Amino acid sequence: MKVNVPDLNQPRVVIIGGGFGGITLAKALKNTAVQVVMFDKNNYHTFQPLLYQVATGGLEPDSIAFPIRKMFKNQSNFFFRMAEVRSVNAEKKMISTSVGEIRYDFLVVATGSRTNFFGIDAMEKMGKGMKNIPEALDLRHIILNNFEKAVLTTDLKERSALMNFVVVGAGPTGVETAGALAELKTHILPKDFPELDLRQMQIHLVEASDQVLPGMSAESTKNAKKALTKLGVNIWLNTRVQDYNGLNVSMSMPGEIQTRTLIWSAGVIGNMLPGLEGAAGHGGRIKVDQFNRVRKHDREFAIGDVALMSTEAYPDGHPMVAQPAIQQGELLARNIKNIIFGRSMQPFKYRDKGSMATIGRNKAVVDMKKTRMRGVFAWLTWMVVHLFYLAGFRNKLVVFINWFWSYMTYDKGTRLIMRKVVDKTTEELREAEKEELPLEEPELVGA
Amino acid sequence: MKVNVPDLNQPRVVIIGGGFGGITLAKALKNTAVQVVMFDKNNYHTFQPLLYQVATGGLEPDSIAFPIRKMFKNQSNFFFRMAEVRSVNAEKKMISTSVGEIRYDFLVVATGSRTNFFGIDAMEKMGKGMKNIPEALDLRHIILNNFEKAVLTTDLKERSALMNFVVVGAGPTGVETAGALAELKTHILPKDFPELDLRQMQIHLVEASDQVLPGMSAESTKNAKKALTKLGVNIWLNTRVQDYNGLNVSMSMPGEIQTRTLIWSAGVIGNMLPGLEGAAGHGGRIKVDQFNRVRKHDREFAIGDVALMSTEAYPDGHPMVAQPAIQQGELLARNIKNIIFGRSMQPFKYRDKGSMATIGRNKAVVDMKKTRMRGVFAWLTWMVVHLFYLAGFRNKLVVFINWFWSYMTYDKGTRLIMRKVVDKTTEELREAEKEELPLEEPELVGA
Repeated sequence: MKVNVPDLNQPRVVIIGGGFGGITLAKALKNTAVQVVMFDKNNYHTFQPLLYQVATGGLEPDSIAFPIRKMFKNQSNFFFRMAEVRSVNAEKKMISTSVGEIRYDFLVVATGSRTNFFGIDAMEKMGKGMKNIPEALDLRHIILNNFEKAVLTTDLKERSALMNFVVVGAGPTGVETAGALAELKTHILPKDFPELDLRQMQIHLVEASDQVLPGMSAESTKNAKKALTKLGVNIWLNTRVQDYNGLNVSMSMPGEIQTRTLIWSAGVIGNMLPGLEGAAGHGGRIKVDQFNRVRKHDREFAIGDVALMSTEAYPDGHPMVAQPAIQQGELLARNIKNIIFGRSMQPFKYRDKGSMATIGRNKAVVDMKKTRMRGVFAWLTWMVVHLFYLAGFRNKLVVFINWFWSYMTYDKGTRLIMRKVVDKTTEELREAEKEELPLEEPELVGA
Repeated sequence: MKVNVPDLNQPRVVIIGGGFGGITLAKALKNTAVQVVMFDKNNYHTFQPLLYQVATGGLEPDSIAFPIRKMFKNQSNFFFRMAEVRSVNAEKKMISTSVGEIRYDFLVVATGSRTNFFGIDAMEKMGKGMKNIPEALDLRHIILNNFEKAVLTTDLKERSALMNFVVVGAGPTGVETAGALAELKTHILPKDFPELDLRQMQIHLVEASDQVLPGMSAESTKNAKKALTKLGVNIWLNTRVQDYNGLNVSMSMPGEIQTRTLIWSAGVIGNMLPGLEGAAGHGGRIKVDQFNRVRKHDREFAIGDVALMSTEAYPDGHPMVAQPAIQQGELLARNIKNIIFGRSMQPFKYRDKGSMATIGRNKAVVDMKKTRMRGVFAWLTWMVVHLFYLAGFRNKLVVFINWFWSYMTYDKGTRLIMRKVVDKTTEELREAEKEELPLEEPELVGA
């Protein structure tokens, strides 16, 4: 049995985070005379673009996550540490982690981003984010649990709040989530809950700007809006959500929605690391130069969502999606080699491959440099692109089968309530339920 | 949209538990003029025979669980309530649940069984059961987490305790778990953890009786023992585990094993319900007559693991496995109809279809009435039988692909640490780790 021991004479590249950027960089450093040490608090890489399908019962979490060690099993200069990184000491070239300190020659911060609640306390407490697998699973279980509770309650107002969903933010995640909820309403839930009148289920998509999918072409925006409306999604444009107490959503527009589930997909914020505050830009991101360096001449780098590189084309930084992270990871691997071999570095140039969102069965919009697509062809493109970037052949296969299955049967396989969803609302609700329950036999709830 | 409303004039059959027995009974009551109300605290049916594969990273939990509502979506006399049943009041023909009280005409207790720690406090606290999906997931995450921790520790004794596994009880579950751990050791973990010397990983199978798979034929017992030994499993027969403090296992035999993971598969105990204590038999089971009635002339029944029917062939009750539950569910459906139509009931007669256990790749033992099998053919039989009883075509397909995949690639797809495993030992360990860590740079751990 060969036991892998690091070569201590090689320069050590410490990568913080196993997202798209970190993974791409580490892979590109295979066969390079460096020691790669990756830290992540999870032992897996998450394919974030499909989290919404986990949340809405379309996919198992295991098929959109990939064990990091498995990804690198044939790369002998790669070492993984499941631990949290707490701070950076750039002067000493050290980072401090939950398992001790470690020295680096090159440091790459690829910590990504998390849900941005814009400091709205009520939202942080009661709104549901969807930026990682535990959050997506929680959301899945909340959604399903709501319907189980809706069957049991005799309070019509409460039942309607349980069956209403508010999605805040109409970017790709918000649009895809609202679309998936609409599919649940049409094809899945009426079969599972014949005791409920699913026409009562309302899906609201609330967006602060004047269009869905802001940033995409006017054509795609229009098509997405049309498709969502046809699916029965209520779209509120130019509307800001101001408060939420677990039941009442108050908005900048007149009118109030009551819901037990507010899904927050209105933005993300970079995962800044203590010790790099000097380079902090807006939105929790770290300012970097065109070589992804945090400071000139230094050996600290940041890539992906957490990196804020201001260029002529993108003065506010690149979009916080997978492609800039992947491309920066690729380039940084080359530049680290350039530094080691005394060559000059190459500046980053973002190649925009376009953007896309799926809205439901047979419906998607795709914007590419020279072409735009919608309908079935866009939907197929969306699937092919997502399968292409999904890590691991087994995952691709299982996801494909699940999609094919859902398509053919109008069904979703995975709708198990496996987590204990204990938020205050649920607990309060249970308490309230207990008090309200009559001692005589409750009638089975009809419509 | 058709909304399903129960016919209140029909007799109401309340089934507690959506295991093999409850599900079979409810299905067999389709097209019968009764109202079927099933209670379960989960919204899914669990295929318990494959829980050990979830625990050892071979299968996703979603593929061995099936949503109960989905199972009955075409059965209009079926109503599901996700709730906990707290007690039975047989005099009033009522049960009390977490969502109120409900009257019944027929009550069927199909609550199954849970891990039996035989009142050993230390075991209940520190040992890991594997009788439901959350427990199996916890175990999976503990196993994988142990190896992540083994990489990080410099304490050789601790590392060895993290890499040792003790399985208590050599029934089918214990044997299959030990076999799956041995496969992890041989084929999976060395690739994932090149920094560790996997030869140090020890798997101990401890059994109180004088053979593995007690109850199976002498031939199968012998073959199973041989196969386990060949896989490197240490078998301790005639040995009782007496105490475990989270690290040291003390046994009735001289010698002490140190392990951070003790898997308890030494027995199960029936899930007795308050209110039926008058009929309590041994092992938490409810005494029933040959018609599965709790008391003569009464309308309370118990089936499956929780039912204790003493017959000539089985004076101590039927084995607590799937087959008696399924067969009793089938018969009870007929007998409920017999009662309703004033016909006489049929007594239960158990058809023993045999028993089987898989030990690893290409290895299994099967005992049937007239024939015994081992090796590849037994292994294939084991797979076919398990796929046959697994609910849902999609589940069968996904499980089959996973098995085929593992077989061809010597790999397992799902080894993500997704739950926060916070037991006292882990916390204590972390505290200990923190204190021990040197302030200077820790060396990357070699062999």
